[in-house]
Amino acid sequence: MPRSATKVSLVGAGPGDPDLLTLKAHRLIGSADVIFHDDLVPAAILALADLRADVVNVGKRCGAKGITQAEINTRMVEAARRGLQVVRLHGGDPAIFGRLAEEIDALEEAGIPFEVVPGITAGSAAAAALGVSLTDRRRSSRVIIVSGHRATKSAPYDATDWKEVARGDATLVIYMPGNNFAPLRDELLTAGLPADIPAAIVSHAAMPEERYRAATLATLDQLPRMDSPAVLLIGHTLKRARRNSKEAVSIALDEAEAILSSL
Amino acid sequence: MPRSATKVSLVGAGPGDPDLLTLKAHRLIGSADVIFHDDLVPAAILALADLRADVVNVGKRCGAKGITQAEINTRMVEAARRGLQVVRLHGGDPAIFGRLAEEIDALEEAGIPFEVVPGITAGSAAAAALGVSLTDRRRSSRVIIVSGHRATKSAPYDATDWKEVARGDATLVIYMPGNNFAPLRDELLTAGLPADIPAAIVSHAAMPEERYRAATLATLDQLPRMDSPAVLLIGHTLKRARRNSKEAVSIALDEAEAILSSL
Repeated sequence: MPRSATKVSLVGAGPGDPDLLTLKAHRLIGSADVIFHDDLVPAAILALADLRADVVNVGKRCGAKGITQAEINTRMVEAARRGLQVVRLHGGDPAIFGRLAEEIDALEEAGIPFEVVPGITAGSAAAAALGVSLTDRRRSSRVIIVSGHRATKSAPYDATDWKEVARGDATLVIYMPGNNFAPLRDELLTAGLPADIPAAIVSHAAMPEERYRAATLATLDQLPRMDSPAVLLIGHTLKRARRNSKEAVSIALDEAEAILSSL
Repeated sequence: MPRSATKVSLVGAGPGDPDLLTLKAHRLIGSADVIFHDDLVPAAILALADLRADVVNVGKRCGAKGITQAEINTRMVEAARRGLQVVRLHGGDPAIFGRLAEEIDALEEAGIPFEVVPGITAGSAAAAALGVSLTDRRRSSRVIIVSGHRATKSAPYDATDWKEVARGDATLVIYMPGNNFAPLRDELLTAGLPADIPAAIVSHAAMPEERYRAATLATLDQLPRMDSPAVLLIGHTLKRARRNSKEAVSIALDEAEAILSSL
């Protein structure tokens, strides 16, 4: 059976704007028989699927209730063995905070061939939205990508966690940052990062509902609650995000909403 | 004059495969009057430009001899002021080890509007080529992107450099890694990284001339000389790169070439 299985395509959908799909992802989505997709992949991208395609939300939030990674893996394997064109569609780049490693394990164990199609990761989309670079040969020589789970909670490896990343020449890119930034601010300040280092949070980067706010490390806890998906960026390269003229509009909208919701 | 200037598009061309361009990049390249591009952008992508477009190599290697970043900036500003559709085409993602920050500075100073269009960065393309994830909730919780300049040479910030990144739960992604990995291996071993941690180097990811080799930290210095552009990856997630069946072919080709060139 495995011998006749079709190749599973593990595809990055990018940040959500169909215009930021790769040509290859666009074509694979349009020709798939089955698409297993994350919550974060928006309707505008799923609409590119063939009308006869089976489009299945395997996301943890709004998708099939309580679906486990093992079940997703099993369904991919079964569909491939039936000879179907299978696309596993991840938000962003599948190699960054997806469950790609586990899916590859399952496909390899089942003897199913696969390909990985990279996508625009959320950090790149957020930087583009802010009109900033993540590196700058004058002041930022590395990019450190972590997830909010790591950023706000001590897990297996932690303790000296932030001391190791809290360097003036790094740009921190925090995926799924949550909404409570006070502990992160305190840890980074304790680790020696300057209080005035710039920061910004971007919600729905590259989407019509894109919204962002700028801050500094010291004022990180004053950032408003932002919709998921969001990316929090901290580092000297973010300085120019505050010069960006869209910010005023963004803040004005937020404030208007706050006033409206308080009435 | 600046008031009538057109918007400059600072665009990521991705790893080089035209199929990994975003739809937006593809469209902008096709409609640009002028394209200023890096060396790393291959002919297959430049061929997508309009026949009447002015396609200018501003790369440091094969491009206009001795062109400075200031000259590139000036030419972009001048073209935008003439009302031309300007695309500044970076290899990979413009926000990662491009000169994007300097270009944005120049455009802002000149009052020229701009947009950043993200691209697939080399690290994502390399991971996809190897069939691995860069993160894995079971063993790798962060991605650290550095350039070989930082990796092999002590620059302003260094000294304790690798101690800060040499954690078992990080995936190191080293852009422009050069060819001499012995100092890097020694520094990482000294910093406490296990000798058997897997590594891989990928050259021309996602291109027909794609080639890669797997190693461990201990054997990093035995990796063959690989063509630029290349990405060196080190971390537990690379373990499965060695299971990939393409490796044998890759090694066999390398060995055949070595034998041929020694005749």
